[in-house]
Amino acid sequence: MTIKCTTAIGIAVLVLGLPLSLQAQDKAPERWLPNLITETPQEGFELAVKLSRMGVKSTQPDKEVLFRERAKYAQNGEALMHASEVVAIHFQTVAAANSYWK
Amino acid sequence: MTIKCTTAIGIAVLVLGLPLSLQAQDKAPERWLPNLITETPQEGFELAVKLSRMGVKSTQPDKEVLFRERAKYAQNGEALMHASEVVAIHFQTVAAANSYWK
Amino acid sequence: MTIKCTTAIGIAVLVLGLPLSLQAQDKAPERWLPNLITETPQEGFELAVKLSRMGVKSTQPDKEVLFRERAKYAQNGEALMHASEVVAIHFQTVAAANSYWK
Amino acid sequence: MTIKCTTAIGIAVLVLGLPLSLQAQDKAPERWLPNLITETPQEGFELAVKLSRMGVKSTQPDKEVLFRERAKYAQNGEALMHASEVVAIHFQTVAAANSYWK
Amino acid sequence: MTIKCTTAIGIAVLVLGLPLSLQAQDKAPERWLPNLITETPQEGFELAVKLSRMGVKSTQPDKEVLFRERAKYAQNGEALMHASEVVAIHFQTVAAANSYWK
Amino acid sequence: MTIKCTTAIGIAVLVLGLPLSLQAQDKAPERWLPNLITETPQEGFELAVKLSRMGVKSTQPDKEVLFRERAKYAQNGEALMHASEVVAIHFQTVAAANSYWK
Repeated sequence: MTIKCTTAIGIAVLVLGLPLSLQAQDKAPERWLPNLITETPQEGFELAVKLSRMGVKSTQPDKEVLFRERAKYAQNGEALMHASEVVAIHFQTVAAANSYWK
Repeated sequence: MTIKCTTAIGIAVLVLGLPLSLQAQDKAPERWLPNLITETPQEGFELAVKLSRMGVKSTQPDKEVLFRERAKYAQNGEALMHASEVVAIHFQTVAAANSYWK
Repeated sequence: MTIKCTTAIGIAVLVLGLPLSLQAQDKAPERWLPNLITETPQEGFELAVKLSRMGVKSTQPDKEVLFRERAKYAQNGEALMHASEVVAIHFQTVAAANSYWK
Repeated sequence: MTIKCTTAIGIAVLVLGLPLSLQAQDKAPERWLPNLITETPQEGFELAVKLSRMGVKSTQPDKEVLFRERAKYAQNGEALMHASEVVAIHFQTVAAANSYWK
Repeated sequence: MTIKCTTAIGIAVLVLGLPLSLQAQDKAPERWLPNLITETPQEGFELAVKLSRMGVKSTQPDKEVLFRERAKYAQNGEALMHASEVVAIHFQTVAAANSYWK
Repeated sequence: MTIKCTTAIGIAVLVLGLPLSLQAQDKAPERWLPNLITETPQEGFELAVKLSRMGVKSTQPDKEVLFRERAKYAQNGEALMHASEVVAIHFQTVAAANSYWK
């Protein structure tokens, strides 16, 4: 574990320390959030799920680590509820942006 | 546990990596959230409970895992309070959408 | 613990899987939230406490389990603070619904 | 610990199961929240602290347990931050109620 | 640890049990929050940090314990993120109070 | 661990105890938050990520510790979700400041 850990730190420092241009393949200038308006509440909910995932990705852009960790917390009730909480917070924002689809 | 874990990761990567069309039997295009308006505050509360569960499902669409994990945290006070917290956040949204039923 | 756990899962799957009509004796159509308006801020606070408990009950309708778990977290400072957090979130909603009793 | 725990459960079930009238000496009809308006932001902050404590008390009215648990989490950085979080949520409500003292 | 723990409880009960006038040297009538208005968003953020710390102080006024605990969670990523969360909640309040500095 | 811990406490007490002017090289008067207005929702999301990091930095200004801890929680699903939660809270503020980019 110590070796793995040290490597992890090494990679993370690299990722965090690199100029954004070098991290481009993962989280780059790609336009993923044109606006917060959706047709229906359900699409708004899906956008909230997406925002929640992009929040995770902003801290850990490495897809392999993301998949490994998502696999773990997808098997854990408490973690799933935490994911649901973040979706709920984003859904507040999206719903307000859409004037609650009224 | 290692075997189980590896399998879990395998499945999760599959689930997360598959195009949405192939995950259709579980979380598919089914319309579950037509709008946020409810007749009464109590129905609004029930909608908040539903939104909270759909948030969990968005991360873990496998019903078997969902039931297994729900069974576990339904036996744990701290986890139950966490579930209640997510309901509370969604209830804020639903209540605002209904102008607090005034 | 394994036996208990399996039983718990069994019960939970049953509870979650049964049609609502069969769970009627516990969380049924009983009208418990006619509206969010209260006479005073203090009654609003009490309503927030009630909403927080109903959130817990929505995940675990079995009163025996509820009492057992409430008894445990009522003895734990961190858990008590979590309960207070959920009350705080609901109190935001109730206070807004009452225009802050102004 | 087993004995203590069983006793605790016993007491809690009693407390939770008793009609409110019999719990009167602790959390009773005493009027502690006449309104949310304060003269200054700082008094509003103090009200938020009070609301946070009343939230804890709503789950655990026994002062002895409250003091014992408060003593424990007052010695723990993570728990202190959690207390600060609940104050922050209530401060949002109080600040909005006072139109941010503008 | 048992001895330390008992002492800690003893002190805390004392602190919590003493009339406010005797705790005066630490959290006293000193005016620290004249209003929520700041010149710039950045000063608003700094005010949010201050509010978050005052929330901690409201539960634990003893500076020595505060410094000891802050030192510990300042070395822990999860705890640091929790601190950041409380700042985020207070920043919502301060930003709203300043009409988002528009 | 005891030695490391004691040193950590020593450093933290120093950092927290020093006048702000002496901590200048890290979190100093540098202007990092001119305003909350962004061109697009996506830039607003990036600002929310930045605010979340500055919240962490406000408690732990030492970059070395920050990188070490970020490396650790970037490898942990639960911690990543917590980071995502803080981003979500800040995104609410930024989105409101921009009238949801409508």
